[in-house]
Order: sequence, then C-alpha cells, then structure tokens
Amino acid sequence: MKLSNMVGERFKERPSECVIDSHAFSVRGGYIKYVANGIYSLYPPMKRVTAKIENIIREEMDAADSQEVLFPVVLPGSLWEESGRFESVGEELLRFKDRSDSSMVLGMTHEEAAVQMVREWGNTYAKYPFSIYQIQTKFRDEARPRAGLIRVREFTMKDAYSFHTSQEDLEKYYDVMANSYFRIFERAGIPEVISVKSDSGMIGGSVSHEYMLLVDAGEDSIVLCEDCGYSANMEAADTTVDNSGCAPAAELKKVHTPDCKTIEAVCTFLGSKVEESCKAVIYQKNMTDEYVVVFIRGDYEVNETKLTNLLGDKVHAAVITEECGLCAGFCGPYKQEAKCQILFDKTLEGIENLCCGANEVDYHYTGLNIKRDIGDVEYVDVSKIRTGDICPCCGKKTIKISRGIEVGNIFQLGTKYSKSMGMTYTDVDGSVKTPIMGCYGIGVGRLAASVMEAKHDDYGPIWPITIAPWQVHLCCMRPDNEDCKTAADNIYKELQNAGVEVIYDDRKVQAGVMFADADLLGVPVRVTVGPKNIANGQVELSTRDKSVKTLVALDDSVKEIQALIANLYAEINSKVRERIQ
Amino acid sequence: MKLSNMVGERFKERPSECVIDSHAFSVRGGYIKYVANGIYSLYPPMKRVTAKIENIIREEMDAADSQEVLFPVVLPGSLWEESGRFESVGEELLRFKDRSDSSMVLGMTHEEAAVQMVREWGNTYAKYPFSIYQIQTKFRDEARPRAGLIRVREFTMKDAYSFHTSQEDLEKYYDVMANSYFRIFERAGIPEVISVKSDSGMIGGSVSHEYMLLVDAGEDSIVLCEDCGYSANMEAADTTVDNSGCAPAAELKKVHTPDCKTIEAVCTFLGSKVEESCKAVIYQKNMTDEYVVVFIRGDYEVNETKLTNLLGDKVHAAVITEECGLCAGFCGPYKQEAKCQILFDKTLEGIENLCCGANEVDYHYTGLNIKRDIGDVEYVDVSKIRTGDICPCCGKKTIKISRGIEVGNIFQLGTKYSKSMGMTYTDVDGSVKTPIMGCYGIGVGRLAASVMEAKHDDYGPIWPITIAPWQVHLCCMRPDNEDCKTAADNIYKELQNAGVEVIYDDRKVQAGVMFADADLLGVPVRVTVGPKNIANGQVELSTRDKSVKTLVALDDSVKEIQALIANLYAEINSKVRERIQ
Repeated sequence: MKLSNMVGERFKERPSECVIDSHAFSVRGGYIKYVANGIYSLYPPMKRVTAKIENIIREEMDAADSQEVLFPVVLPGSLWEESGRFESVGEELLRFKDRSDSSMVLGMTHEEAAVQMVREWGNTYAKYPFSIYQIQTKFRDEARPRAGLIRVREFTMKDAYSFHTSQEDLEKYYDVMANSYFRIFERAGIPEVISVKSDSGMIGGSVSHEYMLLVDAGEDSIVLCEDCGYSANMEAADTTVDNSGCAPAAELKKVHTPDCKTIEAVCTFLGSKVEESCKAVIYQKNMTDEYVVVFIRGDYEVNETKLTNLLGDKVHAAVITEECGLCAGFCGPYKQEAKCQILFDKTLEGIENLCCGANEVDYHYTGLNIKRDIGDVEYVDVSKIRTGDICPCCGKKTIKISRGIEVGNIFQLGTKYSKSMGMTYTDVDGSVKTPIMGCYGIGVGRLAASVMEAKHDDYGPIWPITIAPWQVHLCCMRPDNEDCKTAADNIYKELQNAGVEVIYDDRKVQAGVMFADADLLGVPVRVTVGPKNIANGQVELSTRDKSVKTLVALDDSVKEIQALIANLYAEINSKVRERIQ
Repeated sequence: MKLSNMVGERFKERPSECVIDSHAFSVRGGYIKYVANGIYSLYPPMKRVTAKIENIIREEMDAADSQEVLFPVVLPGSLWEESGRFESVGEELLRFKDRSDSSMVLGMTHEEAAVQMVREWGNTYAKYPFSIYQIQTKFRDEARPRAGLIRVREFTMKDAYSFHTSQEDLEKYYDVMANSYFRIFERAGIPEVISVKSDSGMIGGSVSHEYMLLVDAGEDSIVLCEDCGYSANMEAADTTVDNSGCAPAAELKKVHTPDCKTIEAVCTFLGSKVEESCKAVIYQKNMTDEYVVVFIRGDYEVNETKLTNLLGDKVHAAVITEECGLCAGFCGPYKQEAKCQILFDKTLEGIENLCCGANEVDYHYTGLNIKRDIGDVEYVDVSKIRTGDICPCCGKKTIKISRGIEVGNIFQLGTKYSKSMGMTYTDVDGSVKTPIMGCYGIGVGRLAASVMEAKHDDYGPIWPITIAPWQVHLCCMRPDNEDCKTAADNIYKELQNAGVEVIYDDRKVQAGVMFADADLLGVPVRVTVGPKNIANGQVELSTRDKSVKTLVALDDSVKEIQALIANLYAEINSKVRERIQ
C-alpha cells in the first residue's frame, strides 16, 4: 500500500483526552477514529493488526480442537431469560425492542447462544468433550469507557466454550486452553504476560484465571511475589501482616480527642502510631440496608470485593443516622452497642495496645487489647493487600502490587448455564446428566492496544513483526530524484512480488515528517532510500527498535530485507513454548 | 476435522417451514441454527464457507485498491441525523437508547460511518480517488425474513465506499468494481451471475446495478431479452406492446353488464377479448390520500414501483367512499368526473375498440376509442412487463421474465451523503468542492445460500471447491476393520500434512447414513475407504457432482487426490475473466 493514499491522519500533538500512551498513539497514528463514547472505527493499520491477532488466535484455537462458529450480535431476550441473566445483569447489557416489540439484547458474551447451539446435538456422552469458538463483535454498555481500545463499549472478541462430562475432563481442557493462551500472547510478541488466579472465594465460586500484561498504565492491580512467583488479583490474595513488633499491653484509658474525626488525626494528636490503631469503616448492605462495621488496622483499606464475597451481598458506604446508634468519627469495638454486624479484620490480630474510638463524640480509647477487653473474636480477611506484605505462598515480606491490563481470561463455569438452560446428555450408563462448561475470552482490540502500551518509545509503537500492520516500511526520501524513485519503486515491486507486506511512503514531504510517520506506524523493518546512499549503490536497512541500522547493497536489498524479517520472526517464535500436556 | 466431533446435526426430513432448497439443506446439513426470526448462528461448515467467500472478496477488493477498515455495528443516531436517514428510513432501521439515554442505531449500511471516517482526511484533491471497505455484521429489522440466509435480519456484508472528484472518475472506478464483482462471483463458482441495470428513473436518481443469480426460487423478477442480452429489473424495464392486430373502431355503446365487477367477468359476459379492454386500478397517494386512477389494458398489472417513481409519492390501494365519486367495479375513462389524478398506461395505446366501465353500476361501454371519444391523452409506462413483450433494446418480442437472487449491488451515490454531511475538499484551483461517492455491497451469507440454491441435487449442495467447507470428505466405511481404519487414518494424516482441508468421517454408522451426510456437506472430492477395495490395495475417489468415480491405488491416493483438487480449481479459475479496463 502507498502511504499517500492511505486513509487516516497522523499528527504530532498529543490529544489532551488521551491519558495513556497507547491511546495517544492510536489517535496520533491514524489507527482509530472516534465515533461515539467507547465506539471507534478502525483505520487500515489497526484493521491489519487486529486481523493478524485474529489469525494467531484462530490457529491456536484450531490446534486446541476448538471449532469455529458464529453467534449473532443481536440475541433474543428470551434466551437470556433462560439463564436468568436478562434480570441479573446490570445496565451494561443493552436491552431493546425490535419492530415487533420483542425483547432483544446485544450480545456482550455468548454462553446462552453457545448452549442454545449445541443443546440438542450434545445429547449423548459420546459427543463429549467438544469446544466451539467465535471471533465476533460484542457490545457492553460500559458506564465509563476509557483509554482508547483498552475499555470500549463495542469490541471484537474471541470467545470459546467447552463442554465436558466430568470436572477432571474440564480441568484437562482448561490446561490446554491455558497453554494456548500463553502461545497466543507469545506469538503476539508479549511473552511477559502472566496468568493470575482469580478465585473469588465465594461459596460455589469456580476457578478462573486472568492473563495480565504488566504495564504502569494498567487499570487492574495485581499481587505478585517476586521471590516465589505467587500471583493473584487483589480480591484473591489473602492479606497477612506481621504485628509482632507492636507495643506491649497497657491499661485501657478513655482520652479526650477533640475534633479528631479520622484515625490519622487521632494518632497525630496522641503521638501514637497509626499501625497500632483500629479504625472503623462503616457500610450498609445493598439488599437490607443493615449496617456492617469493619474494624481494621488504621493504615489499611477495606477491599470491598472481599467484603462482598464474605457477606454474599454488595455493600455501599453507610449513611449514619441518629437512630443507627453508631457514633460517626468515634466508632470503636469496645462497648459497641449498636445493632449491626461487626467484623474484625485480620490486620488487627496480635496488636495488644490499640487506639480506637470510644463511641462518644470527641473521645477515644488507648490501650485496647481486643482479647482482654472484648474477648475471643473471629478475624476475617477483608483488607487490601499492600506492597511489603507477607506472601501467602512463601511467607516472605515480598509482596508487590503491580498494575496490569487483563488481556484474556479463562473460567471453569461448572453447570451454571447448562443447568439453567436445560442442557442434558445421556451418560454411558443411561443416566441423564448436565454437562460441565468452561469459557475462554480474549479481546482482540484490547490486545492490540495492550501490545502498543507495552511496546513503544516516545515516538510511537514498536510492533512485534507477527502482528505489525506491515513487515516493511519503505521510505523514498527524494521522490523527485530519479535514481531514488526508480530504486524505491523497484524495491516496492520486488517486495510485493515476494509476498512481503510493505507500506511505501512515496510522498514529497520533509524527512522529519516521513520518519515521524514511520515511527507512528511502528513497522519493524525500515528501508530508507536516499540520494547519497543510492549514489553509492546502497540503501539503509534499520529496525523500529533501533537494534539494527546498516547499509546494504541495493542489489542485495530484497534478500537482506527478507533475512531480517525471518530473524525477527525467529526471535519471537523462539519464545513460544511447547507446553501441551 | 473429524465428523464425529463436529457440532451440528444432519437429518433426512425436510423441515416444513423450508420453502426453498437451500434453506432446507442449510437446516438439514447442520449449517445454520435458528436463534430468532431472521437471526441464525452458523455451525462450522457454514462458517468455513463464509470465511472462504470473505477471503475471495477481500482479495478482489484489495486488488481494486480498496482499503480494509472496520466500522462499528452500533452507531450514534446523531450520525444518521446528519444524513437525514434517521428520519427517512423506516422501521428496518433499529433505533434504541443506550444507558445514558443517547439515540443509537444498528448499522444496516455504513455510508454515514464512511463519510465520518474520512471527512477530515479527504480535505484535498490530492488524496482522491480512494476507496474503503469492511466486512462486518449488519442488522436490518426486516418485516418478513425468509428462506434461511437469503433474507435475514442479521447478516455479514462487505460494503465498500469510494470517493471521487469527478463523475468520470467515479464511472471509471464503478467499472473497476463491476469487474471485481464478476471476478468474485466467478471465483465463488457462479459465473452465470448477470448484472442488471436498475436505474430507478426518479428525477435525480443515479445509476446502479444489481448482480443477479438466476434461480427459480429467487425472490426478484428480472427482465431478460434472450436475443440481444438486454437485462433490467422490473421497474427499470419499459413495457412496449404491439396492439396492431386489434379490432377496427366501432360505435361507442353503453351496455348492461349486471354483476360484472371485474374486467374478466365483463369480457366473458360480452364475449370480447380481455386484450381489448380497459380496466381501472385505483390507488391513493400515501401523503395526501388523493385518488389516482390508472387505466391499463385488462390483461396487464400495474408495477407500483414505476407508479411511485412517476408520482414521486408512494401509493396504497384505494378505499372507495361514496364521496370520492368513483364507481367501484365500473370505473371508466369516458365521462369520468371524479376529482382525481387520471393516468393512461401505454398498454392501451393504439387500441381503437375498447370495452371499459361506464361509471354507473352494472353498465360498461363497448367501442371506446380514446382519441375519438376522449381526445389526446398522454400515455405513461406504469405496467408490469411480461414474457413475450417487446424488448426495449432490440424491438423483438423476446422478453422473458426470470426469477433471481440479488447477490450484490453497486451504486453511483453522487453527493447525497458527502453534501448532507458537509464533506468537502479543496480542488487544485483552490475552490471548495463536495466529493462524489459510490458504494458497493455483497451479502456474504446470502451469497453462500445462493450458491447452494444454484448448485445442488436432490441430496444436498454441490459446493464449488473454491468455497467448499472442506476440499476432501474422507469416509472410512468400516472403522472396525483394522486395514480400513489404518488406511483411512493414514490418508487423513497425509492430507493434513499436505495442507489439504479434510473432513474425516470415522464414525461407526451405516453406509447409507455416511453417504447421506457426505451429500449434505457437499464437499467436492470424496475418498471412500472400504474393506473390499482395501484388500486390493485401492480406495475410491469420486466427486460430489458425480463426474468422477474411479479406483486409485492406496499408495498413490494422496497424489491423485491433490491432482483432482487442482483440476477442480483450474476448472473454476479458467472461467475467471480478466476484464480490467
């Protein structure tokens, strides 16, 4: 393709609305076009990147014996009523009526459609296990789309669904998929993706893993142990703290703490350590409005997902009324008489001399010893784990919290959908059973943007050759110079004949513009045809990551370009591990 | 892929709801799964067929210098307001509100999105011409989806949009696209597709062509001249009839015709020819309810699209009230005093002795001579052309009406969208101009179903090798026979290693079931491994169209299969004409 003809503009100024680099480069490089909040059109470079990602995914899914199918974007509401999700999913499920007043939804995921497709066919054990997948447009009416293609409302996703007759068989295939996922990310040039167990801990909750690409701009927090390799998402990581060095027990004393409404203010006023204080965080349950008071070490925060999982109900910040019996700003566990659920977080365990609220305006206690003054309490884990905490796996104080983008996920679904939708099969002994399912997702556009986020310099993305929009970026520095023009035109033709994907910049523009555009397009191999080198029968060959910059003879240039391309592929493919069990 | 594992059921009984063969085979062959009215999921065989069609389309679009992009499925209503289509398009445009109460639509075509994508980029003449295309899911809320994938609500479509600085340049590219379209249909194995000019005749209407595959089950009527090759759709074809042999003029006489309310009844009663009668067809305009009476030869029908184009307003069948002054069943042109628009169709021209209504219950005239009794009238063309009519091109009575499926269309849009959406460019002389557009569509699923409709026998589709779900269907007749099983397994492995696409039926089923399933899958090359032939070191090689059926040595089988596949490709490719202008 010739750059002069390619739709989409490239420009220098970073758009003010772009918070993260990949979003800025996506806009500045002519990759995406804003259409509506969280909805984009793709220009040719991004369409080419996503097509390559889709092909890698397709090859790996096919290799894992998954069969490609296609489900509709528009689904009947009745199908989602069968699974119960028509009611249970929030506003992110876009519901509407068609011309005959039937309830329809836009598919944001396709478990229901998958079950509907194979419900009759999968009626006997002999057909199991099997796996189906599609690569299709999805719509999720996100409240807050952000960061370009990272979090959008409309997106292309690969979603696979597997069906099994036993948990063991599901687990076996789950491992196959986990392996496929690593291969996909390795082939896409980001072998550094890690898998993070995200067992929610809810009763009946099932196993799942998130695939995380660690980048500073990521919107998810990930718990990592740099020593033993432990990884988890925030709600799956147990917080363990070491309170062994705390002050010894002392007398319980009520002290006047005028206007000290936060735990930090109290500790500053009293000259005590916030690590030896007990603060109260007050919630109400969404369904019943019942009050829940969490007592937690003053320097820790509550992880509301952990709390929700523990309570089995979502919570919101409490509205403190006079009737509720809680003393806002001075709430403490000693002689707490309000009618509410009280939880003690594990971060308090082992501290013998605590400062806490006295349930009376402008008063706190010092010297609280929970065991001595309140008695045996059950400690729960609802705190946010922090950098430097104890690794739940190896026991060292090596926990680090990193930021990451979720580029894929795999779930063991159990029978949630097959059961509610009445899918059964006849087993070998004649009994009727419900199949067990797994599901496996990768967002194509998000993966493209994530690679851009992980692989760029100040000037633009540095695409891995496996998913780059083109393999070669050919710059003719002086199209008005006949020798330059002829040489560049010939290289373009020869590369095309050799099946090499090449973008050819034949514009009459300044060198600065030409190179800036090339940097924004991030094509791994660059061929620069300039008048000086051509006079010596040479062209310049370089790589976008600056590791190669060399002059080659014009006559050998196509051969040299092909060799360089082959090297770049080999470099990536050498990192693709064979993990098939 | 092994057939034993492939999702989707095949069965023998024709479903009662399937009116046309391709729909029946799509359901019976496990190609599609009904999800909702006009909405289907695709099983692996159909997904594979459509993927191959998409690749052919992609190659031809790329070859025509069109750039692949992607537009969203969900579009903001405001974009459609810019073009005026948010209001002007009927209920087939699905409109809804998102969670923030913004108007959205489901894209049924993407002219607006195309203009929005390139509106700023295409600001100077130097960037023209250019063309962009996408292959994407569309939704059109059809009132009456039918015939499986032929007329659906959700479908995958290739839509291309080109932008030009002159009508000449548009026409040049229009020819390039016309050429690409023929190549696409030829490569898909249906070189018999014809292009039909469908100039609507409306003032300001622009040129367009429909690509028609002639099949009896088609829902469109196409006018063809078997002598000179003229083709048009029904509304674009001028009706010309030969009234030269009619009876000579006679006296105008009012006659009593009791209870004769149809022209056929009158002619039977009077013993006259229906070809020499004048019937009245009465409409009302949709916008004003004004009455329109069309007088037309008794044996012709009104083409309502022609009438709409003539009037500039849609019409509906009239409700005859007492006040309107029209005498239902006895309406005629002589002494017609009702306040309404009166049209004389060309089919009446030259008849000198007509029978017609007398505008009085139970009375008709005979001997009406329009010129003598009414005066000079203007004749218009609003009749449906019929087989045996005079060809508007060569003048012979060679018109034939055929049925066809529209498998593609191309339009010269003019400035309709660019103008309304404010897209402009600066021309070479500094003046600001509006670009001229063309658009070009192919429905992928409809094309797949159309090929099935055109290429099948009583037992299933006969896929052209270029779009067949697999190239080879391998049947192991006796998987319990070790020699059979080993030979078939080896052929399967060797074919896969050679990059041949093979579906392997290794099930323990009766030969009848195995062959019926193979017929339904319609794979062009079949390899049958049976115990008798294997004992002789042979396997059977045949084609789905029955043109080949031969025994080959087991040792040569893979080579022979590859040669047969190459032949089948060559056969199709020999029909792909080079037409580039």
